[in-house]
Amino acid sequence: MKCAVVYKSLELLEKVLSFLKIQGVSFELFSQPSSRLEEFDFIVSIGGDGTILSILQEVKKCPPIFGINTGRVGILTHSKPEDFETQLRRAIESFEVERFTRLSCICDSSEFLALNEVAFIGKERAKLIEVEIRVDFEEIDSLRCDGVIASTQIGSTAYAFSLGGPVIDPYLESIIITPIAPFRFGWRPYVFRGDRIVEFKSRKGIAVIDGKRFVETNKVTIKKSSFPAVFFKKEKRLKNLFYNIRRIE
Amino acid sequence: MKCAVVYKSLELLEKVLSFLKIQGVSFELFSQPSSRLEEFDFIVSIGGDGTILSILQEVKKCPPIFGINTGRVGILTHSKPEDFETQLRRAIESFEVERFTRLSCICDSSEFLALNEVAFIGKERAKLIEVEIRVDFEEIDSLRCDGVIASTQIGSTAYAFSLGGPVIDPYLESIIITPIAPFRFGWRPYVFRGDRIVEFKSRKGIAVIDGKRFVETNKVTIKKSSFPAVFFKKEKRLKNLFYNIRRIE
Amino acid sequence: MKCAVVYKSLELLEKVLSFLKIQGVSFELFSQPSSRLEEFDFIVSIGGDGTILSILQEVKKCPPIFGINTGRVGILTHSKPEDFETQLRRAIESFEVERFTRLSCICDSSEFLALNEVAFIGKERAKLIEVEIRVDFEEIDSLRCDGVIASTQIGSTAYAFSLGGPVIDPYLESIIITPIAPFRFGWRPYVFRGDRIVEFKSRKGIAVIDGKRFVETNKVTIKKSSFPAVFFKKEKRLKNLFYNIRRIE
Amino acid sequence: MKCAVVYKSLELLEKVLSFLKIQGVSFELFSQPSSRLEEFDFIVSIGGDGTILSILQEVKKCPPIFGINTGRVGILTHSKPEDFETQLRRAIESFEVERFTRLSCICDSSEFLALNEVAFIGKERAKLIEVEIRVDFEEIDSLRCDGVIASTQIGSTAYAFSLGGPVIDPYLESIIITPIAPFRFGWRPYVFRGDRIVEFKSRKGIAVIDGKRFVETNKVTIKKSSFPAVFFKKEKRLKNLFYNIRRIE
Repeated sequence: MKCAVVYKSLELLEKVLSFLKIQGVSFELFSQPSSRLEEFDFIVSIGGDGTILSILQEVKKCPPIFGINTGRVGILTHSKPEDFETQLRRAIESFEVERFTRLSCICDSSEFLALNEVAFIGKERAKLIEVEIRVDFEEIDSLRCDGVIASTQIGSTAYAFSLGGPVIDPYLESIIITPIAPFRFGWRPYVFRGDRIVEFKSRKGIAVIDGKRFVETNKVTIKKSSFPAVFFKKEKRLKNLFYNIRRIE
Repeated sequence: MKCAVVYKSLELLEKVLSFLKIQGVSFELFSQPSSRLEEFDFIVSIGGDGTILSILQEVKKCPPIFGINTGRVGILTHSKPEDFETQLRRAIESFEVERFTRLSCICDSSEFLALNEVAFIGKERAKLIEVEIRVDFEEIDSLRCDGVIASTQIGSTAYAFSLGGPVIDPYLESIIITPIAPFRFGWRPYVFRGDRIVEFKSRKGIAVIDGKRFVETNKVTIKKSSFPAVFFKKEKRLKNLFYNIRRIE
Repeated sequence: MKCAVVYKSLELLEKVLSFLKIQGVSFELFSQPSSRLEEFDFIVSIGGDGTILSILQEVKKCPPIFGINTGRVGILTHSKPEDFETQLRRAIESFEVERFTRLSCICDSSEFLALNEVAFIGKERAKLIEVEIRVDFEEIDSLRCDGVIASTQIGSTAYAFSLGGPVIDPYLESIIITPIAPFRFGWRPYVFRGDRIVEFKSRKGIAVIDGKRFVETNKVTIKKSSFPAVFFKKEKRLKNLFYNIRRIE
Repeated sequence: MKCAVVYKSLELLEKVLSFLKIQGVSFELFSQPSSRLEEFDFIVSIGGDGTILSILQEVKKCPPIFGINTGRVGILTHSKPEDFETQLRRAIESFEVERFTRLSCICDSSEFLALNEVAFIGKERAKLIEVEIRVDFEEIDSLRCDGVIASTQIGSTAYAFSLGGPVIDPYLESIIITPIAPFRFGWRPYVFRGDRIVEFKSRKGIAVIDGKRFVETNKVTIKKSSFPAVFFKKEKRLKNLFYNIRRIE
């Protein structure tokens, strides 16, 4: 069994490597994620949710990821630095995994994958754009705003959360549309079934994929990808999520 | 084929009855819904969403409902008074129906059915209650508030809407928990998969089912019922919903 | 100097009385506030914000109040049980006071005073009412809702806070209008200059004054009263307020 | 009497000039506002709220402005193209004016004036910044977000409005602090007395003044300026404001 270790800082690295040696797992180190990660049996990520999102930008066919949280919130990670040994051992032994749908985001002819969200924002800062929102090829709204995002249920606790969106059950496959600074008397987050096709159109836009990639475009098409993110199973994911989000400050 | 006609006012009644006669449909009139409605092949409701909710309080096994909107918003109805003939004829001919999950709400040993929502509020007005919220038997939150509601996706445009909740795709089966006047710095609507079991507990509470029934209780258990509401198919339900809700004022 | 001691529970009573004796302050005990409180030089309240609101319901001409918080939040109180001696001694010695405008709420021909807010709600529960809102005799909005409240800046951290309202500087005299469960796509809290006259009109309403008094009425007129609430000066009121509200949970 | 005419498009220009000639008012044309505008007795702005904000960026000592709205919302303007003659004649004859406080925004050693708001945002897009908020030299909050804004009551219907802020009485002098996409479970708009001093601090920030000027800085100090914006009196400003904002879409 071959493991890729992706690390953001050197902080915990030595401890993790010793642990893997004891477990008899061979490994390779990555200070930067690359598409070569696809070749491994699993990935250990040492960092925060951002590190995991960076990994996911590189892999289409995703090996199971185990996240050790050395960052802040840790919605996507599996353990704190203190207790990674117990959790990681259990993960490797049982090898139970969970798959979470990613969004395929098509800008012109390029495709990108997002676990959390695709934000569609104005190219010029501090300038309103008018965005047309289509779902399954029907216009359902159009509004002047700083931008609009489409997120997965997993992303409901990421940027969508900052925009006042609801918290969604990680096991309810869905696409959530939330505007960024809508200049309008009323607005609501819209929550759609996960198999809908969402389109955003405007003049002079930028698509931001998981906060990691920036693509200039006037139109994005967003739908369920057939390449999910794969994680080792997380115990009590639902209960922990609701515990954690109330502590985001 | 036998049709029950439930009417809130006499306004449109004569026209509807003439129409049914011409169609060769036999009918019976109900100024008040009763459990006898279950015996009919279908129901025509002349009134608003409230009339349909009253009908649903009486029927467990639900015949398909066709709603002619003589009220205000009309999320559940199928046509305006002006064009009911075309729509109703098409409905009877095709007999295509849609089923929407209702919530089974258990208070002590009684069961109630809700299409929109179950509100759990304090018995004394203008007095905070402390509500414990459990999902699948795990406490996920607890808060001081005027009350808490659990709604279906259909109910997301009813009382949950007034409480600042998101608008949910009518075809995304889900349970939405939204607090009523939470005395807390932060809160969010929570959206769960439709097969979760939700419990609310407090001292001196009242459960309000679809705004129609009031039950004193200290605990309610809410889950998917096996008796859905049945409606004739509504064309472009999704697009119309988003068009309508922006006009609620 | 004569002090009235109003206590909600016996908890701290003995300690407070000993302290007053040592200070050479004569006192009288009130387990229930009454209008006789007006005759005293100052009032010590042992309880929470609710106890202070009860006192204010009884006094028109308000002696300075010092609040010892044995309750939860304590926006209106001056000290915790642990350190009341230092704070109360300082208060009595300096006798520096602060005045906060109360709202005069006129229902038919009766007048009531509110420090926090006047809520105008429907008489029947779980039934929408249509409320017309007038400011300085001009209709500025009208909406279907569970009710509407008019609060002072002090009340912005009471019921208005639960309804999603902003937190207002305690020294910015103002009247804030916030709807309760508005059935409308858009709404905002409205913040007015403190000398405006606000009117709410509806059918079958109840006015709730500071959560303490209930008056059936179809119209309430709300404006600045010439009988403010009087408190001993609270050190760092602004900073403490913002510290406290973030901890309301 | 000398009038400056600032125009965004040529649309209405001829009509306005004919009108001024008939009134016997001499004028000079500006396709771009400049600081020379200070020398005039009054200014006629043909455009939208944006045109007026551009004018205000150029003038410290502000002549009275009359706005003819050829744009969208028109919170700051006085008339529509159809009826500018009546309104403008009345304005010139009575010469009644209103002054609205502007915010002085100090970045390093430069000062800028804002009628609506100062936004303090991160230099890099789609990257959270941590902002410390001080009021009268006390830290009152600190949060991770896309940015924070300080607006006047007039600006409460501009960018602050898009961020979910309350609508403030145009005659209630105040400073409103609203976060942009706060990554936190809870937050509220904060409304302060207009004479408070507000400071925002972060690493790598940009101050955006009325959406018009961009200044790189790590700290901004915001307080009441002694150079207000001056407008001709607008009839029924309060009632019109509340009418208009409900129609923003």
